[in-house]
Amino acid sequence: MKWTKKDLLGLEELSREEIELILETAFSFKEVSSRDVKKVPTLRGKTIVNLFFEPSTRTRTSFELAAKRLSADILDFSISDSSVSKGESPVDTAENIEAMKVDCFVVRHSVAGVPKLIAKKIKAAVINAGDNSHEHPTQALLDLFTIREKKGKIKGLRIAIIGDIQHSRVARSNIWGLTKLGASVILCGPPTLIPSRIGKMGAEITYSFKEAIKDADILYFLRVQRERQQEIFFPSIQEYAHLYGANSENLKGVKKNVLIMHPGPINRGVEIKSEIADSSSSLILEQVTNGIAVRMAVLYLLIGKKD
Amino acid sequence: MKWTKKDLLGLEELSREEIELILETAFSFKEVSSRDVKKVPTLRGKTIVNLFFEPSTRTRTSFELAAKRLSADILDFSISDSSVSKGESPVDTAENIEAMKVDCFVVRHSVAGVPKLIAKKIKAAVINAGDNSHEHPTQALLDLFTIREKKGKIKGLRIAIIGDIQHSRVARSNIWGLTKLGASVILCGPPTLIPSRIGKMGAEITYSFKEAIKDADILYFLRVQRERQQEIFFPSIQEYAHLYGANSENLKGVKKNVLIMHPGPINRGVEIKSEIADSSSSLILEQVTNGIAVRMAVLYLLIGKKD
Amino acid sequence: MKWTKKDLLGLEELSREEIELILETAFSFKEVSSRDVKKVPTLRGKTIVNLFFEPSTRTRTSFELAAKRLSADILDFSISDSSVSKGESPVDTAENIEAMKVDCFVVRHSVAGVPKLIAKKIKAAVINAGDNSHEHPTQALLDLFTIREKKGKIKGLRIAIIGDIQHSRVARSNIWGLTKLGASVILCGPPTLIPSRIGKMGAEITYSFKEAIKDADILYFLRVQRERQQEIFFPSIQEYAHLYGANSENLKGVKKNVLIMHPGPINRGVEIKSEIADSSSSLILEQVTNGIAVRMAVLYLLIGKKD
Repeated sequence: MKWTKKDLLGLEELSREEIELILETAFSFKEVSSRDVKKVPTLRGKTIVNLFFEPSTRTRTSFELAAKRLSADILDFSISDSSVSKGESPVDTAENIEAMKVDCFVVRHSVAGVPKLIAKKIKAAVINAGDNSHEHPTQALLDLFTIREKKGKIKGLRIAIIGDIQHSRVARSNIWGLTKLGASVILCGPPTLIPSRIGKMGAEITYSFKEAIKDADILYFLRVQRERQQEIFFPSIQEYAHLYGANSENLKGVKKNVLIMHPGPINRGVEIKSEIADSSSSLILEQVTNGIAVRMAVLYLLIGKKD
Repeated sequence: MKWTKKDLLGLEELSREEIELILETAFSFKEVSSRDVKKVPTLRGKTIVNLFFEPSTRTRTSFELAAKRLSADILDFSISDSSVSKGESPVDTAENIEAMKVDCFVVRHSVAGVPKLIAKKIKAAVINAGDNSHEHPTQALLDLFTIREKKGKIKGLRIAIIGDIQHSRVARSNIWGLTKLGASVILCGPPTLIPSRIGKMGAEITYSFKEAIKDADILYFLRVQRERQQEIFFPSIQEYAHLYGANSENLKGVKKNVLIMHPGPINRGVEIKSEIADSSSSLILEQVTNGIAVRMAVLYLLIGKKD
Repeated sequence: MKWTKKDLLGLEELSREEIELILETAFSFKEVSSRDVKKVPTLRGKTIVNLFFEPSTRTRTSFELAAKRLSADILDFSISDSSVSKGESPVDTAENIEAMKVDCFVVRHSVAGVPKLIAKKIKAAVINAGDNSHEHPTQALLDLFTIREKKGKIKGLRIAIIGDIQHSRVARSNIWGLTKLGASVILCGPPTLIPSRIGKMGAEITYSFKEAIKDADILYFLRVQRERQQEIFFPSIQEYAHLYGANSENLKGVKKNVLIMHPGPINRGVEIKSEIADSSSSLILEQVTNGIAVRMAVLYLLIGKKD
């Protein structure tokens, strides 16, 4: 199996084999970050641009570190001081930066499909780092990596994804990835936050927390994005936490060895209480650690030397 | 011919030989950015500071990439979070940063002459990256480089610069550079946007678009800086585009093989229509590409090893 | 003497021997910044994060340069675009970044004690880069380094610290450092800006400028932080400058060879006039220069190879 795609735009378009190639490559890169000298010369002299039209420190930082540990040069092109405010389109911006001889763009944009639009117009590799509620492939890949690392496999597992499914690119990318690797996925949240058409992606749907967690091997809690939510999807944060939050009371009756995941940053006391977030079942910080390895793998596969 | 100046403040003060030395040096650096490993150790261990008192992503990014491809360390000192808000003068700011043992400053400031003021007070090299409507030497140098690369020469060519001449440092630096290298320059725009005294710099002036483009080998369209323009210099964007914009209708009657240039970012449909910007006559993206080579050359000449 | 502490949180907790070890290590690093190639491979492959919850260009830039000259990778995590605005606690933020395998955090926060709080929860080294009016250890260390370099010793010297003592972490860290190394310290300023309990730290207090400067070897002027001062601590800037500012008139009667220091950035005409700031007695720019050496030393001692 060799990598042949120019871009990484979403897990929808990847085959099971391609996903597994990324996970295996990430496995071999994970060790680099635990070395005393956390750096390999793999991408020396390559130029990567973080092209973020939406603010994000976490994902941007993870890509920056991944790039630096591969010895690539990475530029930060953030929206606030960019030409975007001068009325330039994202594609024009990308084409202009590409003219400086850039090898890879990491693109985040508030409109679904913009990374793909850019990818079509430029020769450099494009990684979708989140496009509205569409996809966030490297997040799902690091989740898959973490699950496989902890459970030894993905096939046959049952994963409950709980929260605001409707607005979640993390949920969508995970549904694609998990089902392609043979897991079963059950989505759970308030009815207002689960679009009915999402069932077509191959996941079950339930509005009952109890039912969602019953046989699950992994509980994946989504972030309540209070800062984005302009409409009202549920009566109150308190009620949400009570009905769908991760806390000891709610988690009575889960499977033994159930593992807890969250894409971060967490709202303590909202979708997850500290007693769960900081427990030994929580994989939250390991997800962050694995994000570096997965992003190193993706950068390497997209722009590393092919021989 | 050897480089002897400490700073690059404008093309007004450069001799023809100095300009040609920069262009020749840029020629030899251009190849670096098309390598698989886009990096040479030329400026390893040198410290360059982007000291931008005005926001600019494009120029700043171009200098950052140029520095990184020469293996220099580059620091970004942007105004928003700087000591400037604490009432420090630009010269004090520069002297303080210089005390950290910096080799070169790339300075942009909204007041003409500030880069020169800084250059006089510090020992490090200073590159003017734009000081109001005064000069933007590396932009003109990359334009000269691009023209010579495409036309094989500059001497004897006729270049029409079209748009807001009055507020354009790009126009001024290009007039100095082009005339020193033996080209003839004709300036064109609404009468309100062409100061009469600019004729003294050695360029013709016309208010007629037809006349400007008639015998021109290069049409250089300036950006309409809508975000800066507080006074009203022309009735409407539509009328401007109609009278002075680059579009197929207006460009009837140009010389065969005419080339189109623009300093970017372009306002599609304002000073240039997509049919022209994206045509094979357009050098816009090549200008961006050559910006890296020219800035590498300038950095090398100013702070590289002299032997 | 070997360095054994995980963190550098303040000079209060350091022994005289530890302070001297840092100063000696800084001495050996100072030479690096005057080389043609200002870079040593000492911290290659280490990851340092500037975690600034308060804006600061000067200190952040100094750490960035120190890190780069040691060949470390340094990431900037500034507050404006961080997850902090999403309601995450500083400790959560640090733990998350640490999960990316970070070796050292440089932390500035507007609340005293936050760097210590973070240091307790994470394994990576933490350097306090200023926590409200509590401590700013690397500033005091670079001051000690500069005094010893210029005076040949610290023991037995008399240092007057003049200005807003109450809100000054620089004053506090310097009092700890200077007294531990055997200097005597006299604090001077308007009564409203000198908390009486500060006398317990081992410094004299006076409200008389004349008395403060009489036998002092060093006059250390603090910055008037006009932008922070919401309450009114003195009648007017003019009166402050007249009573406590560094100017030729006020400095009549100082010891011969007295030296002038200031943590920067200076308010010309407020706490210091240009005739003093730019005089040969002023060590202001040398303090900045020595900041790099001291920060290189601290980074090296905290995360360099121990053998």
